[in-house]
Amino acid sequence: MPLVVRFLGTSASRPTVERGVSSIAIEREGETLLIDCGEGTQRQMMRYGVSFALNDIFFTHFHADHFLGIAGLMRTLALQGRTEPLRCWGPRGADRVLRRCEALGADRLTYPLEIVEVEAGASLDRGDYELRAVAARHRGGPALSWALVEHDRLGRFDPAMARSMGIPEGPLWGRIHKGESITLPDGRVVEPSALVGPTRPGRRVVITGDTRPCDETVEAAHRADLLVHESTFGDEEAGRAVETGHSTAREAAGVARDAEVRRLVLTHLSARYTRDPSDLEREARTVFPAVVVARDGMEIDVPFPDAT
Amino acid sequence: MPLVVRFLGTSASRPTVERGVSSIAIEREGETLLIDCGEGTQRQMMRYGVSFALNDIFFTHFHADHFLGIAGLMRTLALQGRTEPLRCWGPRGADRVLRRCEALGADRLTYPLEIVEVEAGASLDRGDYELRAVAARHRGGPALSWALVEHDRLGRFDPAMARSMGIPEGPLWGRIHKGESITLPDGRVVEPSALVGPTRPGRRVVITGDTRPCDETVEAAHRADLLVHESTFGDEEAGRAVETGHSTAREAAGVARDAEVRRLVLTHLSARYTRDPSDLEREARTVFPAVVVARDGMEIDVPFPDAT
Repeated sequence: MPLVVRFLGTSASRPTVERGVSSIAIEREGETLLIDCGEGTQRQMMRYGVSFALNDIFFTHFHADHFLGIAGLMRTLALQGRTEPLRCWGPRGADRVLRRCEALGADRLTYPLEIVEVEAGASLDRGDYELRAVAARHRGGPALSWALVEHDRLGRFDPAMARSMGIPEGPLWGRIHKGESITLPDGRVVEPSALVGPTRPGRRVVITGDTRPCDETVEAAHRADLLVHESTFGDEEAGRAVETGHSTAREAAGVARDAEVRRLVLTHLSARYTRDPSDLEREARTVFPAVVVARDGMEIDVPFPDAT
Repeated sequence: MPLVVRFLGTSASRPTVERGVSSIAIEREGETLLIDCGEGTQRQMMRYGVSFALNDIFFTHFHADHFLGIAGLMRTLALQGRTEPLRCWGPRGADRVLRRCEALGADRLTYPLEIVEVEAGASLDRGDYELRAVAARHRGGPALSWALVEHDRLGRFDPAMARSMGIPEGPLWGRIHKGESITLPDGRVVEPSALVGPTRPGRRVVITGDTRPCDETVEAAHRADLLVHESTFGDEEAGRAVETGHSTAREAAGVARDAEVRRLVLTHLSARYTRDPSDLEREARTVFPAVVVARDGMEIDVPFPDAT
């Protein structure tokens, strides 16, 4: 069950020749989610082969570089004749901003646009995972980070042991795997614990919006498999990061270290780093070694913690 | 005095991997104009080296693929600290639509946004050229094409003749060139016609909006140096062109032929032709030979009629 994070735009504030503005696609078991949708996202989706059959877009906040692309994407989905609802989730203000984007087109959309405003701390039930809205600390209105948290999975079933106990392969295996005690035809009772290992944790991916380093991110990303943290500036502009409500690469790495994540990816780079982000990577690495700087089109596969 | 037309987006309705949506830059004597500003235009400007120090954007109409990029471009100009006014010109509805785009940003712009609604038939005085708003025939609201028409230039001055007549090089030459009769110290009167050839025509470039082939284009483009005509479809979709208010390549070529233009460039291609527009070019060529299909980044130099 692959979980892939694909970077569609990695530039802060404005695009550059090399990088589009913010958008990330998450592809999980045939489902595609978008986190933010900056100008040009639809073309980046085409370029990098991201499905347009998506149902949910999650916004971190409503600065222009994080949402303008929804206006064009909405139109293209209508041109495709979409009829299924498109759901957009975001912090307070989502409805006002996104309805304005909807109103920019001359024609009505061919599908319902559903907009849900979400408070930090909310958790959206998504079947076998949840999406948590996490408080971000930015300037100018409410801002969120998003945490995708998979539910625990069943423990491993031991087929060799099952066979040796004379339990025939078939529906019984599934019932035992799911935690049921089974009485065999000969009267023996099989407890699941005899054949099934301990519950295994699911994966956790946290994607920050624009934010200062903060405890809320550390908490949401605790032992996450992947933290994608904004990293607008390098050490030389640490003061500007404070003024503008952003993080430096080093600060993002500090969050990753404190949260004990497995892997950190830096994104949302100021234009000055667009060609050569090696300073950012170097500064982050002194604090947290398992770090890379995103580039547009980069694809990060997130394996299960017990897969390696 | 170069006049260059640069294609920033050549796809109709939606972008493709190969082509952005509508925008064309005109660069003339250090001045940059934009015709339309579809999503992603600012990034195309960066990619193809178009100046952000522009003062005027001319819109053909307000279907989404022709204007959404103004929202992001406005923001980037503000990030650059622009203070000079930005003027946007377009048909009726311009004010409502463009003010909505302005309102999408959280912060106020750092410069005045001036919006002027223009009727077909209007002519804007631009110093040594004019821009004419030409009626286009599209569906869903008023639509324009734009014609850049340079004023006639002075005739050629003949320096060898001037010297042979004993007229010293200097301010006198300029006065004669501009049409003044001059009395020399020895009493001789020099008429300009003795030294200056006939007035030479300026250049004319016509860029259509989305439109059916129409007489207004033929008239505005009469003997134009360059006609850029929309060409959404090929012969096989001639019916759809009628239904949707667009032109086929063959129809665009018919306009070029009737207007006796020097050169035709086809743009605004349906996505089906995005990789291989050779059918469009072939169909147009049977009607009008001096034709090419635009691609993103293509640069067309427009020489003076008497330069070749």
